[in-house]
Amino acid sequence: MTTRSLLILPGDGIGPEVMAEVRKVIDWLGAKRDLAFEVSEDLVGGCAYDKHGTPLHDDTMAKAQEVDAVLLGAVGGPKYDDLDFSVKPERGLLRLRKEMDLFANLRPAQCFDALADFSSLKRDVVSGLDIMIVRELTSGVYFGEPRGIFEEGNERVGINTQRYTESEIDRVARAAFDLAMKRGKKLCSMEKANVMESGILWREVVTRVGADYPEVELSHMYADAGAMQLTRWPKQFDVIVTDNLFGDLLSDLAAMLTGSLGMLPSASLGAPMENGRPKALYEPVHGSAPDIAGQGKANPIACILSFAMALRYSFDLGEEAARVEGAVEAVLAKGLRTADLLGEEGVSPVSTAEMGDAVIAEL
Amino acid sequence: MTTRSLLILPGDGIGPEVMAEVRKVIDWLGAKRDLAFEVSEDLVGGCAYDKHGTPLHDDTMAKAQEVDAVLLGAVGGPKYDDLDFSVKPERGLLRLRKEMDLFANLRPAQCFDALADFSSLKRDVVSGLDIMIVRELTSGVYFGEPRGIFEEGNERVGINTQRYTESEIDRVARAAFDLAMKRGKKLCSMEKANVMESGILWREVVTRVGADYPEVELSHMYADAGAMQLTRWPKQFDVIVTDNLFGDLLSDLAAMLTGSLGMLPSASLGAPMENGRPKALYEPVHGSAPDIAGQGKANPIACILSFAMALRYSFDLGEEAARVEGAVEAVLAKGLRTADLLGEEGVSPVSTAEMGDAVIAEL
Ligand SMILES: CC(C)[C@H](C(=O)O)[C@@H](O)C(=O)O
Ligand SMILES: CC(C)[C@H](C(=O)O)[C@@H](O)C(=O)O
Repeated sequence: MTTRSLLILPGDGIGPEVMAEVRKVIDWLGAKRDLAFEVSEDLVGGCAYDKHGTPLHDDTMAKAQEVDAVLLGAVGGPKYDDLDFSVKPERGLLRLRKEMDLFANLRPAQCFDALADFSSLKRDVVSGLDIMIVRELTSGVYFGEPRGIFEEGNERVGINTQRYTESEIDRVARAAFDLAMKRGKKLCSMEKANVMESGILWREVVTRVGADYPEVELSHMYADAGAMQLTRWPKQFDVIVTDNLFGDLLSDLAAMLTGSLGMLPSASLGAPMENGRPKALYEPVHGSAPDIAGQGKANPIACILSFAMALRYSFDLGEEAARVEGAVEAVLAKGLRTADLLGEEGVSPVSTAEMGDAVIAEL
Repeated sequence: MTTRSLLILPGDGIGPEVMAEVRKVIDWLGAKRDLAFEVSEDLVGGCAYDKHGTPLHDDTMAKAQEVDAVLLGAVGGPKYDDLDFSVKPERGLLRLRKEMDLFANLRPAQCFDALADFSSLKRDVVSGLDIMIVRELTSGVYFGEPRGIFEEGNERVGINTQRYTESEIDRVARAAFDLAMKRGKKLCSMEKANVMESGILWREVVTRVGADYPEVELSHMYADAGAMQLTRWPKQFDVIVTDNLFGDLLSDLAAMLTGSLGMLPSASLGAPMENGRPKALYEPVHGSAPDIAGQGKANPIACILSFAMALRYSFDLGEEAARVEGAVEAVLAKGLRTADLLGEEGVSPVSTAEMGDAVIAEL
């Protein structure tokens, strides 16, 4: 029998609430589909700091390295705003990404037809939107050295270093081209090669990798123009590949186009492990939303869909993934809405748990 | 008599065409309002490279340092795509910004009521929108050292350096607070202090400067959240201050929200000169649009409004600036559209020159 090990890190804020709904899906798969998962759970972010004085304990890090997939809720909250940089909740997440070497962050921006009117963009601009942003996640200005705040003359200077090697660009480019091959065979690479040498190298390496994918139509765009074009007519894109920092902004922008942040999952993938599965971490795009935490108002769908991505990318259970995704769409089509998705006439919100239960009922 | 000296750098692509329409406004001010300008003209960008082998000749640079204001059209074009980084058209623009020390880039994102339907966003999200982005323009990753492409082991690495001193942050923050005082007294500062030490210093210095402006309501936002919030509900903002690279993306995003890029001006201001006027360069936000260059299709309004900003910020002619802006609004309200603004029923486009003439007629 295949084992499927999963480490669940609910984290802070609404993390535990939305993760409880994912548990229902996991249980359903075990009971009804005979798909067992070995699930362990641990702390990350502010709650880990509260207990251990660090946002990610070494034991948790070690566990994350051993499992087939990590599922993370969200980290952070105002309570931790004044902590030192080195122990902020985000450092836990960044350490997971870096030490697991999860270089390819897959961020689908998909507009659910039932929710298209929630977008601030016109319906025809976003309905049917389905793009995938591949963001480099383990290098660039997030991790480059030197970094810090230094004395210089009689003042201080804040320094960070944007830094990309050819092989770092090569591997994320390949991940993006592979995805493009499975989708619309169109890839747009974004950088600022007109201003940054790291962007020049980026463009050169992506172009070189493109020679191995003659079927994929490759284009390049400056990241500022990319932000504009995503806003103007996002459907012109299929797959976008970009660096860590541009990817942070552009994928959030793309997510917001869909109008329903509470719906969007993400996968962060690394190199294959011995068992052939990639190192992997899955998390919703939304944050920890401390303002609504503990009130049953959170939308669990992004976290459920993140688990669906795990089924697809880590456990080779594409059919089950599609089943979960289908159940989510069906529930939305029936008009169920959590509090983040209000505004339609005659709709009153369901709770986090009710939404989870509805997905299970649909399954 | 006051002298008013102006260096005009039409640049590449549609630059010369749109600048020709600004000339009409300058002539009108001379003839009808008795406001004389000493105008000289020179090359920047690709056309300067063609003639001198450099995108900005030293003589032009020296002239720019002496005049009261520089007015620039646009630079770049596919013809120059394969030039070496050091002589690309953009380097001419970046050299002007750096050597004139134009640290505060003012980018208004204003939605003209007559044009609100051109936005990809819903009318109620953008109509009446009027925000101002203040982008730091002479430091950060655009200019930080070390930079370049280096050999490392058996591969190359692309490096750029994000770098901000306290005084660099201080001066652009003051420019933004000063503007906020003249507007809605609300300032939002954007960085990635959760990931970058340069962002931590940024936030600290902006907060400190804020103590000198107790009337201004100051907030901070991570730049990725900023991209989201600009897309979701841009009217929540009044003035935004951010660094060079984030400002590049965010101001382009904000510009695109308005739906009419051909309408948006910008001002880049430095320290006061001996005569009390700030060093200044004005340019439209749009690019050189080589695909439509020379066809009379370009929209001259962004360049005309850039000149209006020059009247206001360099020549203390706020009333004349308002007059020009009013003429532009009136012409739009009458339904005149250049080719970039088509789609309304029964509207056929006017040429670049016709649009310029209509503005003059309105004046
Ligand atoms: C929480 C933060 C460190 C993180 C990032 O900047 O990468 C977040 O914005 C994201 O995109 O996952
Ligand atoms: C042309 C380019 C160098 C420039 C920049 O990146 O600053 C442009 O995008 C801008 O925003 O003025």
